[in-house]
Amino acid sequence: MKTAPLALFDSVRGCPKEIPHNEKLLSLKYESLDYDNSENQLFLEEERRMSFLGFKCLEISRWVICGLIGFLTGLIACCIDIAVENLAGLKYYVVKQNIEKFTEVGGLSISLILWAVLNSAFVMVGAVIVAFFEPGAAGSGIPQIKCYLNGVKIPRVVRLKTLVVKVCGVICSVAGGLAVGKEGPMIHSGAVVAAGVSQGRSTSLKKDFKIFEYFRRDTEKRDFVSAGAAAGVSAAFGAPVGGVLFSLEEGASFWNQMLTWRIFFASMISTFTLNFFLSIYNNKPGDLSSPGLINFGRFESDSVAYNLYEIPLFIVMGAAGGLLGALFNTLNYWLTIFRIRYVHRPCLQVMEAMLVAAVTATVSFAMIYFSNDCQPLGPDQSEDYPLQVHTHTHTHTHTRPLSLIPTLTLNPLDIVFDLVGGTNKMSPVGHIFVCLLFLWELLLFCADGEYNSMATAFFNTPERSVRSLFHNPPGSYNPLTLSLFTLTYFFLACWTYGLTVSAGVFIPSLLIGAAWGRLFGILLAVWAVPGKYALMGAAAQLGGIVRMTLSLTVIMVEATGNVTYGLPIMLVLLTAKIVGDYFVEGLYDIHIKLQSVPFLHLEAPATSHWLTAREVMGAPVTCFNRIEKVGTIVDVLSNTSTNHNGFPVVVPVAICGLILRSQLIVLLKHKVFVELARSRLTQRKLQLKDFRDAYPRFPPIQSIHVSQDERECMMDLTEFMNPTPYTVPQETSLPRVFKLFRALGLRHLVVVDSENRVVGLVTRKDLARYHLGKHGLEEMQLAQT
Amino acid sequence: MKTAPLALFDSVRGCPKEIPHNEKLLSLKYESLDYDNSENQLFLEEERRMSFLGFKCLEISRWVICGLIGFLTGLIACCIDIAVENLAGLKYYVVKQNIEKFTEVGGLSISLILWAVLNSAFVMVGAVIVAFFEPGAAGSGIPQIKCYLNGVKIPRVVRLKTLVVKVCGVICSVAGGLAVGKEGPMIHSGAVVAAGVSQGRSTSLKKDFKIFEYFRRDTEKRDFVSAGAAAGVSAAFGAPVGGVLFSLEEGASFWNQMLTWRIFFASMISTFTLNFFLSIYNNKPGDLSSPGLINFGRFESDSVAYNLYEIPLFIVMGAAGGLLGALFNTLNYWLTIFRIRYVHRPCLQVMEAMLVAAVTATVSFAMIYFSNDCQPLGPDQSEDYPLQVHTHTHTHTHTRPLSLIPTLTLNPLDIVFDLVGGTNKMSPVGHIFVCLLFLWELLLFCADGEYNSMATAFFNTPERSVRSLFHNPPGSYNPLTLSLFTLTYFFLACWTYGLTVSAGVFIPSLLIGAAWGRLFGILLAVWAVPGKYALMGAAAQLGGIVRMTLSLTVIMVEATGNVTYGLPIMLVLLTAKIVGDYFVEGLYDIHIKLQSVPFLHLEAPATSHWLTAREVMGAPVTCFNRIEKVGTIVDVLSNTSTNHNGFPVVVPVAICGLILRSQLIVLLKHKVFVELARSRLTQRKLQLKDFRDAYPRFPPIQSIHVSQDERECMMDLTEFMNPTPYTVPQETSLPRVFKLFRALGLRHLVVVDSENRVVGLVTRKDLARYHLGKHGLEEMQLAQT
Repeated sequence: MKTAPLALFDSVRGCPKEIPHNEKLLSLKYESLDYDNSENQLFLEEERRMSFLGFKCLEISRWVICGLIGFLTGLIACCIDIAVENLAGLKYYVVKQNIEKFTEVGGLSISLILWAVLNSAFVMVGAVIVAFFEPGAAGSGIPQIKCYLNGVKIPRVVRLKTLVVKVCGVICSVAGGLAVGKEGPMIHSGAVVAAGVSQGRSTSLKKDFKIFEYFRRDTEKRDFVSAGAAAGVSAAFGAPVGGVLFSLEEGASFWNQMLTWRIFFASMISTFTLNFFLSIYNNKPGDLSSPGLINFGRFESDSVAYNLYEIPLFIVMGAAGGLLGALFNTLNYWLTIFRIRYVHRPCLQVMEAMLVAAVTATVSFAMIYFSNDCQPLGPDQSEDYPLQVHTHTHTHTHTRPLSLIPTLTLNPLDIVFDLVGGTNKMSPVGHIFVCLLFLWELLLFCADGEYNSMATAFFNTPERSVRSLFHNPPGSYNPLTLSLFTLTYFFLACWTYGLTVSAGVFIPSLLIGAAWGRLFGILLAVWAVPGKYALMGAAAQLGGIVRMTLSLTVIMVEATGNVTYGLPIMLVLLTAKIVGDYFVEGLYDIHIKLQSVPFLHLEAPATSHWLTAREVMGAPVTCFNRIEKVGTIVDVLSNTSTNHNGFPVVVPVAICGLILRSQLIVLLKHKVFVELARSRLTQRKLQLKDFRDAYPRFPPIQSIHVSQDERECMMDLTEFMNPTPYTVPQETSLPRVFKLFRALGLRHLVVVDSENRVVGLVTRKDLARYHLGKHGLEEMQLAQT
Repeated sequence: MKTAPLALFDSVRGCPKEIPHNEKLLSLKYESLDYDNSENQLFLEEERRMSFLGFKCLEISRWVICGLIGFLTGLIACCIDIAVENLAGLKYYVVKQNIEKFTEVGGLSISLILWAVLNSAFVMVGAVIVAFFEPGAAGSGIPQIKCYLNGVKIPRVVRLKTLVVKVCGVICSVAGGLAVGKEGPMIHSGAVVAAGVSQGRSTSLKKDFKIFEYFRRDTEKRDFVSAGAAAGVSAAFGAPVGGVLFSLEEGASFWNQMLTWRIFFASMISTFTLNFFLSIYNNKPGDLSSPGLINFGRFESDSVAYNLYEIPLFIVMGAAGGLLGALFNTLNYWLTIFRIRYVHRPCLQVMEAMLVAAVTATVSFAMIYFSNDCQPLGPDQSEDYPLQVHTHTHTHTHTRPLSLIPTLTLNPLDIVFDLVGGTNKMSPVGHIFVCLLFLWELLLFCADGEYNSMATAFFNTPERSVRSLFHNPPGSYNPLTLSLFTLTYFFLACWTYGLTVSAGVFIPSLLIGAAWGRLFGILLAVWAVPGKYALMGAAAQLGGIVRMTLSLTVIMVEATGNVTYGLPIMLVLLTAKIVGDYFVEGLYDIHIKLQSVPFLHLEAPATSHWLTAREVMGAPVTCFNRIEKVGTIVDVLSNTSTNHNGFPVVVPVAICGLILRSQLIVLLKHKVFVELARSRLTQRKLQLKDFRDAYPRFPPIQSIHVSQDERECMMDLTEFMNPTPYTVPQETSLPRVFKLFRALGLRHLVVVDSENRVVGLVTRKDLARYHLGKHGLEEMQLAQT
């Protein structure tokens, strides 16, 4: 051992323990992926042994795996879709029965309670499995996948258990009527599928198929995960190109072209599989014309798509979306802080989720009752009827329209009586909401033969509501309805995101945006194609919240199936991003920061040319000799403060290699000691397979027993270290270091002086620390939590 | 100077001079782009002086430039389109007049001759300007742009003159009726526009606008050129996402995300501009619903798009496309070799182009006359009438149907007499063709009220023919017509590509493929949607020729406007690529290889782990001291055998920097000598601006006069060298070196030993030399030509 254990983290010693989540801190608990191949002798020998045919076979396996990933992701999407549809159908059926039964005896509040209880029950199941079994499955999963693709190892994010909980959880939360989408979780699901399939084994199930062993390392696994994420996007939105671009946007640094093709292939297979199975489910086997889980419906391009003078309007909408998105994110940020502080016990989390479900049901119910927006019920509008079951093809919906609307035309005083003075069995919050709404709005109800347009907006599945807002003819919605709906749904969605349930934010955002976009379109009565403005509003709102541009544009274009809207959608998204970024970061980035993840952004901060590798590197660095004493190695590995996870290997002065903690652990476990090799001549030589078998859950150092005698042995690292680690001189500027890091997906970058002596080590945290704040370049602190 | 001039090129001394073009050679005349920033003191000082606002301004300029690039590219596309339409209209008008005048007097051969002469005249103009003024404008330009994006400086490829000749040339060759498309040249045009606009000056016009000076270096310029290429694709195919992916596929190594967004923006603006101006031209101002230069028409997705059992058929078509593409490429390869050997004088080249034009006209004419495929002329098919003027919108074509068909129903013996025994004024090749066709086919003509489907396929602009093949109802074409057409057009297109005219191969490939695809569809009469098979055939043929996959899939999907066909198109393109690659490379790669361009492929050859930096590097390397004698520098720069164009700077033992030839030239020109600085205290300090002003045409060393006294002066390189060049140890494997090179877009990579002493230098040629041949890894030779 060359130097004392590093003192890099001195600065954080004084950091108060009681603030575990703070966006000014970087957590040290997250490790990086080893995306850079350790080209040690074992590896090179294996590569050199392999024939050209061997490489071809590997390449074919990669394609096969990507095909499998796409297939399984599509299948999961299909299952989620069918499960949600049937559960929701069942729920609607029960409620309808109840309404019909109790309407006559004045018990509409009973129906409301039943409704709320059913929703809460679904959500409870979803929240319980997430909170108690696998907290990693909470939320949309997109922040976690972003981090993973960025190169951060988020614990448990690609486990089989996470997948199961995620899938069941999202079914429950969507069926439970929360203001959530099932699209975000699809991306996470795709990623988990990819991580599982590509390894040819399941560590959770303790099942090893003995295939794809070559791919058992971070480099290959991460590549497949990016394909899985793309397949997820593709299945969710029917947007294979959008999926590819999503993966590129998030995992841009390590891009290569063959990989992109495979990602595209996985995406294609995924949307194809979904189509195929849904076509069977819809009794049109073999018809592959329907795209992903959500479909915005076709915007016909026969008519004039848009005019030049509309572009400024779209940009204004983009700005509005940016503002609203920033508001959404800020509110959600406060809420998340609140949750981190006070709602961290699982049972509390479950209760909050149930509360939100009950409130959502109550508010929806109340909004419909107290809405005065009655529209004549035309014969062609029957498909916009609320409460019908959502199916996928426009033409062949086996709808079961429930005759709820006529039952709504009751004497409101019944309900008011029920609610205010009545049985009092409903939740108090729902109570208050309903009362407030009651006071606030005039009590107007619809006559027979009319329908309630608020119900159209509120009581559909969110996907269907979005489509209605895009495509219903002008005049379908009353501005007041839309404003009310926007307002309510905005706060509901904001409250919902971050609950301990598995749920996405894409669809709610689209819905909010479509509502106010359509409102905007109606107010511009002259130009009178409100559906177009609904589309732009949806894009603006979603862009304002998540701040994606390129991939989101393509996803929106693919989901609408009309290339012509590409430019306005792009302008809207860009404006939304610029305006939103002025106030606050994107929703996913906020959540990533709150987790203190050392996330590497696209480029080094603009004004960071002042800094050089010398200033940012961690020093001094623990180095090993080429032949090192076992005791020293064990001591270093046991010392938790030396958590670079990589150690330069030196010959007297100069660097000659780099060895990873995980490699050392495997060496210690197999007792690859010089003395033992001499004494036991028959000992099997350590192979790459041994490292692959231990991947990815390398045992902790504590579990490896090293006797006092063995501590005196020596270990020869020559064969196992990476003999050609990337190095930079101390004078290298931060942007240059950053670029090298990003372009090659490095984990460790050794800083050397002019004689090739190790002077420091740059890791992800050293680079992620710097960011542009209000007062120029700021440095975050590092925390062990 | 440390070592003797390098002896790297000994191996090529024996290479015979008389084979200048050989795919087993790598030419040394091509230099690499300096994509890696030289982060010398001047640069760092400038960056450090710049405020955050300054960086913001730069970023905004980049967006503005990309907008401009998109706008100008769209405008050029619009001009080309309108010019072609009007010139072709004029030509058709003249020929029609002539036919009407001479038909009665039995002089149809005169019409044929007029036709051929007119075509040849157009082509002559196009060929003359290319052959005599700017040979760099020949062909589609895609190979050149591929090379540029790959990092190779192709001389004159992004000059203004090239642009002008390219645009005029493509107008002439398309109007001249050659089997060419105007889409490929659009990509080149976009790239030139980008290179021009981004520099804020024109070296050709000697006009400096004093703007965008910051962008005067290879790094920035190349980024903008990739945006320009994308804008070109976008304008050509109405495929902005396809454009982005094209740029990524070709310039993948240096990708970053902000750049991708800007590329996407340029693409969007480009297709938007084209739409906007074409909408004005078509008297529908403000209607932005029509996409790029070519539009495949909408494949309706209301009906069943395709069935599962059709996928194997598509794959078979892909394989066929791969085979036919390989045949096309092989034939064209032989033809190109022939041209290089025997047709290298400009006047010969012009004559060949004229010959091809005449033959194309004659063959087309003859095919129509001798075709027996008469179809009833329905009222709705009048738009498929031959010889009408191509316009852009489906609905508002201001067609001028010419009544050619009735004139075709003449006594064929008239023509035969004219041709065989008659005036003999036509070109002999055309003569032979017509006679052969005459003997081969039965002489059947169409009655009044019928139309000739061969004419539909042959006498339209190729774009329109493609659309007819995709969308005409089943039964529009007779299988014999299609086979004949495929056969003829295949050879015509093959002969045409590589002529000294400005022309692309996309549209001819699509047309050939659409023809045999439709034929295939007709033969599978049971499934009976031949248009779909035409689309797959077009994809297969194009994929078999150019071997693009991802970007081509997206381009095809965007041009058809139907996402559903994505998977089959992708499968077809993949199959075509796999099958085609088994036989011969893609057309563009063949032409790149024939130019001996050191093109870096995506990855190092699979079995190259045997090689290390030590084996591939050039050694010994010419190094300079930090303070070096001017005479030494001048001598080294004058010695043409030291053409690494970059020189490591060393302090006694270890490397301390890298300086480029171009930097040294500027230093010599400004006489930045230590002694002069001492004597003339007022001398202005050299700034980055001086380097930028000299960029990109640095003067040759011969033009810089250095007196004998000055030769004894010293030059201090400290401030100007890049103090942190990338280095690797000698043991680094070739794949690792390759990856570093590609990922960072390097030009020089210094190989050092364990004490940081320079032992070699790896450049592009050292890596491009290795490729996988029939017998494993092969090494190409280097040639000075």
